[in-house]
Amino acid sequence: MDREPLSDEKIPESVDPTDVYVADVTDETAVRNAMDGVYAVIHLAGDPRPEAPWDSVLRNNIDGTQQMFDAAVDAGVEKFAFASSNHAVGAYETTDRTPDMYRPHHEFRLDGTELPRPSNLYGVSKAAGETLGRYYHDHHDISVVNVRIGNLTQHHPPKEYERGQAMWLSYRDCAHLFECCIEADYDYEIVYGISDNDRKYYSIDRARAVLGYDPQDNSAEFTFEGEPLDEA
Amino acid sequence: MDREPLSDEKIPESVDPTDVYVADVTDETAVRNAMDGVYAVIHLAGDPRPEAPWDSVLRNNIDGTQQMFDAAVDAGVEKFAFASSNHAVGAYETTDRTPDMYRPHHEFRLDGTELPRPSNLYGVSKAAGETLGRYYHDHHDISVVNVRIGNLTQHHPPKEYERGQAMWLSYRDCAHLFECCIEADYDYEIVYGISDNDRKYYSIDRARAVLGYDPQDNSAEFTFEGEPLDEA
Repeated sequence: MDREPLSDEKIPESVDPTDVYVADVTDETAVRNAMDGVYAVIHLAGDPRPEAPWDSVLRNNIDGTQQMFDAAVDAGVEKFAFASSNHAVGAYETTDRTPDMYRPHHEFRLDGTELPRPSNLYGVSKAAGETLGRYYHDHHDISVVNVRIGNLTQHHPPKEYERGQAMWLSYRDCAHLFECCIEADYDYEIVYGISDNDRKYYSIDRARAVLGYDPQDNSAEFTFEGEPLDEA
Repeated sequence: MDREPLSDEKIPESVDPTDVYVADVTDETAVRNAMDGVYAVIHLAGDPRPEAPWDSVLRNNIDGTQQMFDAAVDAGVEKFAFASSNHAVGAYETTDRTPDMYRPHHEFRLDGTELPRPSNLYGVSKAAGETLGRYYHDHHDISVVNVRIGNLTQHHPPKEYERGQAMWLSYRDCAHLFECCIEADYDYEIVYGISDNDRKYYSIDRARAVLGYDPQDNSAEFTFEGEPLDEA
């Protein structure tokens, strides 16, 4: 399901075209229609802009996610993966910690047990989505995993953006991670979605242990063109 | 500020009647008008029903709280106490833990460092309000304390409701606690608002340490008329 029609080449041959829906996540009837007979949901919809205004994240991300969960439990969906974000915890990057925490030998790690500290109202909306998942998991028979996605860029990590190196998620690791969310057994989880970067301040231990996540990429394998590091 | 006019006897003599506002928390202009020149906010407004439907808590509790914070930081408010709720964490009361956790010698304690586990969508809205507070504290110069209020009843605790005994908050302890929220110095806090009950599964250590909360009441001083306990 997407808000815009998908071009034919974007629809894999294994997908029945009648299983492709064009609808907005805020359209309740359309969401419920698309949810019929579904086993697992990967919920990526919403306003993705870190600087999105409150009214948009309230409607598209918070209200839209509640609607998705509500339709999912009514349809008997078994697994629900929610695209959360590094912005749900971006304010742990305090001036005391940065930029040291972005470097390979720094020990600071977020592991998903910490309370949210959003960078922005978009991050608030993602934290609210995680809490909705907690509620729907606890009160309905649905497995929920929140993936706090780092920095998703194709081919190579951001070349001059130190933070982006630390939280890079390659396309293939991303696809693999969400495949794990469909195949693994879990109750309620919060995991970080990054590649196995030398630089990291998010732990991927939980994703490995519970989901079987086995990332293949590491931003350190690509040339970093930013300021040289003390450790380098 | 209240949604309904206050009767004259409810307005203390020390309060200037021109400082009393009648407005709905969803009325942006009215909220901003009432916020002018304010030093501290005790934000109790919202739909208080545990069974409130999503649309109401989305609008009144989540959107209403964002509006309060936004107006508060623009007005230079220094302290913001948010009435959160035991329902933000009600799902920690699993069938494995209850009713033992309501009893005096049980060691289970929630202390405010745990992730939310809402009992209902009302609880989801309260957890979202806490996260909004985190965001506004981290990005604006405002102290925020979230008070997860237990069970507020006048005169005596619920007589036949074991859980209610454990999370009773007397009227005078409540008034004292919010007074502490105005007078103490703090950054960002999550505390539990209950009296010093023998039965408790919420820690009040943080409220004592940071806010100077010194509760005078204890539900054990009142006759409990429910089922006799094993320990009793």
